[in-house]
Amino acid sequence: VSNLINYPNLKKPRKTDKEINFANRGMSLENDLNLTNEYYRSIGKAIIHKKPLPLQIVAVDYRKRSAARITEAYFKTPSTTDYNGVYRGFYLDYDAKETNSLTAFPLSQVHQHQLKHLQAVIQQKGIAFLIIRFTKCNQDYLLLAKDLLAFIAKNARKSLAKSWIEENAYLIKQALNPRLSYLEIIDQIIEEVKYV
Amino acid sequence: VSNLINYPNLKKPRKTDKEINFANRGMSLENDLNLTNEYYRSIGKAIIHKKPLPLQIVAVDYRKRSAARITEAYFKTPSTTDYNGVYRGFYLDYDAKETNSLTAFPLSQVHQHQLKHLQAVIQQKGIAFLIIRFTKCNQDYLLLAKDLLAFIAKNARKSLAKSWIEENAYLIKQALNPRLSYLEIIDQIIEEVKYV
Repeated sequence: VSNLINYPNLKKPRKTDKEINFANRGMSLENDLNLTNEYYRSIGKAIIHKKPLPLQIVAVDYRKRSAARITEAYFKTPSTTDYNGVYRGFYLDYDAKETNSLTAFPLSQVHQHQLKHLQAVIQQKGIAFLIIRFTKCNQDYLLLAKDLLAFIAKNARKSLAKSWIEENAYLIKQALNPRLSYLEIIDQIIEEVKYV
Repeated sequence: VSNLINYPNLKKPRKTDKEINFANRGMSLENDLNLTNEYYRSIGKAIIHKKPLPLQIVAVDYRKRSAARITEAYFKTPSTTDYNGVYRGFYLDYDAKETNSLTAFPLSQVHQHQLKHLQAVIQQKGIAFLIIRFTKCNQDYLLLAKDLLAFIAKNARKSLAKSWIEENAYLIKQALNPRLSYLEIIDQIIEEVKYV
């Protein structure tokens, strides 16, 4: 069972903060991205979905005809990132990460198999990246996988300093709709062919 | 619970047929595609994965620290196709369908939300298609979504005649490795810009 992992929590939206802020009402990054991608799909701008969590299904009860009921299953380690899709003919592939740190993003949050996957996507000329949220300062960055991989190749550090991210990643604008307009950044990256 | 569906069977490889045939040993189309995509990934040719089944998780038992155990979950209707990924910078998106019919492919096997998804992918310049297996004649066809959608727009028929598929789809070569060399067909489609 080495590929079974203990998912600590199924993400739920946090309770509303006291300070109401339309740009970000204290929702999780996953929620914001789901709303953003739903919006992009609704206006025909991009087709990007979050993949379902991979599960190892052990037992299913078929007795009720209305709906088969899974009675035993376990979370598996995903072999890819969580989000992918197509925009303007380009393949987009990314993962979303949140940190409570004010000063750095811990690289332990990016798993080895994800780095391998991001590298493979770049080789196929896909646009691979991370979206990193610094929860406490309410900032979201788009970091190209090629820049992340270059950093890892050159550094033994176990985290990316926030100052490094500010210099090397793109700050994502927050708004009401879309919440995170990351496709504006992708437009810029496509234009400058920065993704490979 | 209208989005919960009764998945009749979790696909298992069928028992080996008596007649051993290296091109196709009686495996399911899903199995053949998984092996094919694994092979393509292993040689760095394309990064294409099958998406996990979407599940509605109702109850999880966290008592054992080693692995959280899902004790109640239900299958949900997928909102997309099962397979997607990137090849040569192109976004590929498809679903796999099998029929026992010798003469036709029933269109009831393609759900409305899948048609809508395939259409949206085409609009984003992705390459959208179906892989259809005629199990009894052991033939696999790659049918571009644009040709399927054009047929549906013009015809009230509830199925695609096999003769129509033979004329309008691409027969996929079967071999040992990759089992279904469908990327050869994609190369041809890219070259002739047939996908939009």
